Amino acid sequence: MKKEDCIFCKIAGGDIPSSTVYEDADFRAIMDISPANKGHVIILPKDHFANVFEIPEDLAGKAFQIAKKIAKAEKELFNCDGVNILQNNGEAAGQTVFHFHVHVIPRYTKDTVNVTWKQGAYGEGEAAKIAEELKARL
Amino acid sequence: MKKEDCIFCKIAGGDIPSSTVYEDADFRAIMDISPANKGHVIILPKDHFANVFEIPEDLAGKAFQIAKKIAKAEKELFNCDGVNILQNNGEAAGQTVFHFHVHVIPRYTKDTVNVTWKQGAYGEGEAAKIAEELKARL
Repeated sequence: MKKEDCIFCKIAGGDIPSSTVYEDADFRAIMDISPANKGHVIILPKDHFANVFEIPEDLAGKAFQIAKKIAKAEKELFNCDGVNILQNNGEAAGQTVFHFHVHVIPRYTKDTVNVTWKQGAYGEGEAAKIAEELKARL
Repeated sequence: MKKEDCIFCKIAGGDIPSSTVYEDADFRAIMDISPANKGHVIILPKDHFANVFEIPEDLAGKAFQIAKKIAKAEKELFNCDGVNILQNNGEAAGQTVFHFHVHVIPRYTKDTVNVTWKQGAYGEGEAAKIAEELKARL
């Protein structure tokens, strides 16, 4: 199901033209027009799901299978130093368009992409306790 | 197949204990012991694949299905502002252990995680040309 005012619905459905890398019944993968590096691709489901919480599990899996193919193609085409596959959910996580998408970004040793964090630590028994709490919710 | 000197092979196989959130025949998901935020999980295949280029497509898809489940559990448990799902390939992309893994990171508006880049642009026809070159390699 499409969402009326969603630009990624229009692009995925072909109502707005895009440079398409891959298309099937469920997905369209396109060039990000403001790329982190040249060849930066985003993978969009044709139906509207705001984020990973909304997309069905089978489509989530399929999106990552497509990401793998594209990562390999980027590596071959650009001989890049690496590739990030990234999927953001929520503004706090860097999501700017609220239609599920997966970034596949060619990486170079000296580029402008930052994927970093300050490493934290757990107190005695804390990680095990959180693991149990997460497990109970799966 | 496991790799002799790989710490993630030992953890995924249960030879080194970990706080396990999820386990099946192919994967183990554990608490990252140096978390970006509390509840940061990494998903490890039990067999050794250095990166997304090596892992078979079906397992890549399965990893992301597990990531979806864990993202949802994190959102429920922590009521976090967002979640990043991140998979790094190559040192240039931030990969530090060369055994395929997927990060699932709870996010908050003011936290230490940076997932940012300088937005680039394409010249006339450039994106379409790269799209064709990638498509030819899929």
